[in-house]
Amino acid sequence: MVEMYDIVIVGAGPVGLTLSTCLARWGYRIKHIDNRPEPTLTGRADGIQPRSLDLLRNMGLKRAIMEHEPAKVYEVAFWDPASKGIHRTGTWASCPKFIDARYPFTTLLHQGLIERVFIEDIEKNGAKVDRPWTITGFKNDGKDPKYPVEVSLAHVDGTMSDTVRAKYLFSGEGARSFVRDQLGVKIHHKDPIAHVWGVMDGVVRTDFPDIKMKCTIHSDVGSIMVIPRENNMVRLYIQIASSTDPDFNPRKTATTEEVQKHAQEILRPYTITWDRVEWFSVYPIGQGIAERYTLDERVFMGGDACHTHSPKAGQGMNTAFLDAVNLAWKIHHVESGFAPRDILSTYESERKKVAENLLDFDARYAKLFSTRIPSAGEVAGAHDSSDQQEENEFVKTFKASCEFTSGYGVAYNPNLINWSPEHPAKHPLFLSFDAGTKLKTGRYFTSATVTRVVDANVVHLEQEIPMNGSYRIYLFAGNPSISSRAVKDLATQMSNKSSFFSAFQYADKVDRYHERHNPHTRFLSLCTIFNSPRSKIYIAEMLPETLARYGDHVYADDVWDQRVPDAKAAAHAKMGLDEEKGGVVVVRPDGYVGCVVKLEEGAGTCEALNKYFSVITGKKLGEERATL
Amino acid sequence: MVEMYDIVIVGAGPVGLTLSTCLARWGYRIKHIDNRPEPTLTGRADGIQPRSLDLLRNMGLKRAIMEHEPAKVYEVAFWDPASKGIHRTGTWASCPKFIDARYPFTTLLHQGLIERVFIEDIEKNGAKVDRPWTITGFKNDGKDPKYPVEVSLAHVDGTMSDTVRAKYLFSGEGARSFVRDQLGVKIHHKDPIAHVWGVMDGVVRTDFPDIKMKCTIHSDVGSIMVIPRENNMVRLYIQIASSTDPDFNPRKTATTEEVQKHAQEILRPYTITWDRVEWFSVYPIGQGIAERYTLDERVFMGGDACHTHSPKAGQGMNTAFLDAVNLAWKIHHVESGFAPRDILSTYESERKKVAENLLDFDARYAKLFSTRIPSAGEVAGAHDSSDQQEENEFVKTFKASCEFTSGYGVAYNPNLINWSPEHPAKHPLFLSFDAGTKLKTGRYFTSATVTRVVDANVVHLEQEIPMNGSYRIYLFAGNPSISSRAVKDLATQMSNKSSFFSAFQYADKVDRYHERHNPHTRFLSLCTIFNSPRSKIYIAEMLPETLARYGDHVYADDVWDQRVPDAKAAAHAKMGLDEEKGGVVVVRPDGYVGCVVKLEEGAGTCEALNKYFSVITGKKLGEERATL
Repeated sequence: MVEMYDIVIVGAGPVGLTLSTCLARWGYRIKHIDNRPEPTLTGRADGIQPRSLDLLRNMGLKRAIMEHEPAKVYEVAFWDPASKGIHRTGTWASCPKFIDARYPFTTLLHQGLIERVFIEDIEKNGAKVDRPWTITGFKNDGKDPKYPVEVSLAHVDGTMSDTVRAKYLFSGEGARSFVRDQLGVKIHHKDPIAHVWGVMDGVVRTDFPDIKMKCTIHSDVGSIMVIPRENNMVRLYIQIASSTDPDFNPRKTATTEEVQKHAQEILRPYTITWDRVEWFSVYPIGQGIAERYTLDERVFMGGDACHTHSPKAGQGMNTAFLDAVNLAWKIHHVESGFAPRDILSTYESERKKVAENLLDFDARYAKLFSTRIPSAGEVAGAHDSSDQQEENEFVKTFKASCEFTSGYGVAYNPNLINWSPEHPAKHPLFLSFDAGTKLKTGRYFTSATVTRVVDANVVHLEQEIPMNGSYRIYLFAGNPSISSRAVKDLATQMSNKSSFFSAFQYADKVDRYHERHNPHTRFLSLCTIFNSPRSKIYIAEMLPETLARYGDHVYADDVWDQRVPDAKAAAHAKMGLDEEKGGVVVVRPDGYVGCVVKLEEGAGTCEALNKYFSVITGKKLGEERATL
Repeated sequence: MVEMYDIVIVGAGPVGLTLSTCLARWGYRIKHIDNRPEPTLTGRADGIQPRSLDLLRNMGLKRAIMEHEPAKVYEVAFWDPASKGIHRTGTWASCPKFIDARYPFTTLLHQGLIERVFIEDIEKNGAKVDRPWTITGFKNDGKDPKYPVEVSLAHVDGTMSDTVRAKYLFSGEGARSFVRDQLGVKIHHKDPIAHVWGVMDGVVRTDFPDIKMKCTIHSDVGSIMVIPRENNMVRLYIQIASSTDPDFNPRKTATTEEVQKHAQEILRPYTITWDRVEWFSVYPIGQGIAERYTLDERVFMGGDACHTHSPKAGQGMNTAFLDAVNLAWKIHHVESGFAPRDILSTYESERKKVAENLLDFDARYAKLFSTRIPSAGEVAGAHDSSDQQEENEFVKTFKASCEFTSGYGVAYNPNLINWSPEHPAKHPLFLSFDAGTKLKTGRYFTSATVTRVVDANVVHLEQEIPMNGSYRIYLFAGNPSISSRAVKDLATQMSNKSSFFSAFQYADKVDRYHERHNPHTRFLSLCTIFNSPRSKIYIAEMLPETLARYGDHVYADDVWDQRVPDAKAAAHAKMGLDEEKGGVVVVRPDGYVGCVVKLEEGAGTCEALNKYFSVITGKKLGEERATL
């Protein structure tokens, strides 16, 4: 008997584990293998960007991450050549105030600890990672139309092998991907420059004052990057060779002692010694991007299998998380009958563009990082004092890239999911960014603090619906004395069984009285936010039964926000919605804005939503019209 | 061979576990027993007050508590009789804004889960709880002067017994304390009124809108208190009988069904049914306070063994936490040679006063809760509308007591530890509350958000020193351009080997390079806070070596605070210290303010501190004077 799985996932690094975590929660049958006998023990990626921490919190994993007491990077210090050694020329926020981040810092924790957090969650949901197993072959032969992909697996020691069938195969194998090779997918090398890097994690003694900060240090004898770590450790990145060197050798290496000696020279006049070295590695890195992420929308790739670049911007793991979440919900919606198969094509179109932006940034950044910066002595002729010297290109690029590196810059282009005026769904009530809303489709849903009505808890609205695979409908209901008719009309239209709201409701009669997020369908979850003090909101009286069913998700927009100090309803204001009349925001299951619709009396609001969802679900929604 | 312990702790409820947790961390040898075969399984205490959550965070236990997803009570709703059943007459913050709390909510989690968090921590530190064991006898016979107390223990099943010797014996046995009985310590009954209470934890279905809030409900047919719980549970407290009833019977009881029926009647016009009942108990409660907490300062008692009262104010467990922490550091200081034995007498004087205040509050509150409130119909004659009706006594008392019930009202009287103008240490630089500082000795140290210099992390200053048993010296260093001389002078005096700072330094030569909190002594930890932006603070240049050694505890007072919006240095301002000149705050190991001293050039600041610490350590400090 051949075992059947919804998906076979190869590789238990960040991308594979994130995909497994999502799909295991949503009830899929997963075969997950990794060719290493255990999770990463030391070293490797370690930077969680602010936006990724939002995501991990939404997946319920943030607390377990934070339990390891990771280092937090709030600022980056720039050190440049000085007359005697190096001096600090400035610092810059890792995630500056103009970015509205809940967690304005980068979280540093070694990849193995992060992997274990995911693995524990996966195991809670009945899946596991088989190790050390490897993939030996696969074909999408369609012999079983339901499980079209045959995958051959083998234990690394050669004693066991297995052939299974699956609906999907995913490669999260890293830069050396068997699946990618078999598919014949080429890697494009965007930047012809390759680098050899040395990286060292350890516990040090030093009088260098910024050893607990992230620092980029340029000296006359080389450059180094300092990154603080958990457990009082420090990571140093040192460039060992570059393809721009006259004598470049990609196999060039260096010993621990050589790298330490080099670091000591760069850090002068400060001293540094090592109590212990936990991890040391020298590896060549070239930029590359896979030309395709999938050929048949059955066999997919993500993470380092699709894009490689330098470690300096700390983006690798973060891009992997988002690759996985993007794919996870789309597979889920196809398999649940919520979307046609062609939604899967947006995985490549959305995520490849992000990878391309990342590689562009990385190439510029790596080049600037490697460029020798004139020392203070040389500059002195041109400038009066080092305090007044102009920012060099490296610092300028760094500052300009904060939104991108924090993760908040990810912007998916308009497509069938991300509404735009060119979207096939046309309706006068769609609100575009130009027309007033501050929300942009294809970008993250703005954070807002509100009061939950049922228990008066002050909560983060953007976190109230967990990563449950559902669309998130935010009904900003404005001032209830003004919007009550509009809310009632919307509810009436939504109750129509062909509406986006009702079309996918559960067919079974399971008792879901205590279900908070998905009481009537897994297609969507719903939040209602009133511009009103909490004590004046009576759910049973103010909301029709359709909406009152989501009573645990009713909020008062009554918390003052420093970013919109004059607003009466800060959440409404931050979204750019009318504080009196409100509006409806549709957020994709991965947290990006899908569309924004005005809230008006009559059938229009629901009509616009029906049109939008008709396009992405491939179903004719809202044909039957409720009598108002 | 008789085993020797630093302390024998009897009872593994909140008070015993907190004591064990502290002492195990500080390296003491503990024999901890409990007569139950396992931790609390269901029911019992469950409310953690805002101030206690600060404490648990300081002990490093908050995250493990929060992992259980406790319910959080931000507001309390008052329901009173209405013409048809009941109606909500108002709500009130559990911890109103005038209290500067980090966590303005009560955390609800069942006692067993809380106990397990402590037990895990104790086990990490090499101690454990032996179960089910009980105490059968003890005597402070002084036969071994180092271990004067003999304690006899027996396994509950009678198969094993043991006799051990200890420096201390602690009873955290609860209301029925064998130790207290043996000592012949009497319980005073402050309030002659006794009550029989029914309490029921369960999962319900109801249309009562405030079921996820804490509610006090008065109806014409009885009163009830609703408290939300983790895992979608609700606790109901119902008064079954009161000694004020004409037919009072303290043995009166009620079945689950009777209590449910009664709750259904009280909640009308709303309906309620139970999916399941997790715990149900009926128990009589009388108020009582032990006349002594110790007779010989070797055998101590704390928690319910010393004070019992109604559960309604949610204070029992919180008072227990604080009893234990108060005693723990005093035992630690005596055993470390940091204080003479008579500091132990302050355990009873400080904690008994808190218990008396609690019982006074509880008696008033319980009486008002039990008082029948006239229904809306009856009141209608006197008032135009229910919106305008005057607050009843119960609501008034509740509101007036928020500071007390949140835990921020605890105020220890002046004594040898809590400086006052009557304190034996006299010096013109002591700052009293009347003389300008906003800090009060014997009260909690005000919270403040600052930026840590070494890593630019935005941190909570009051949490920066963990519960390590050390005094916490906060050097608010003001504006460095103004205070640099004063800081230097203070450091010079502190370097004198007879100063409070140096007198208790380690005698050994252990390498403590990486020790953040106690690099040179366990007697104290030290934080320095500058009124300056972080990027302008250069620790090695601005602080003498004595202070620079605490480099991980240097902070920039550069974070804006809504409570002092016009301050340039919010932390200085919140403490009521001069923003330019600064000041020194001594905080006791349990987080309460000991004394406040002006920061001035010359020897005065250190002289005042030497005098203060001479009194509480019983040592002549600062006799030798450094040359300035």
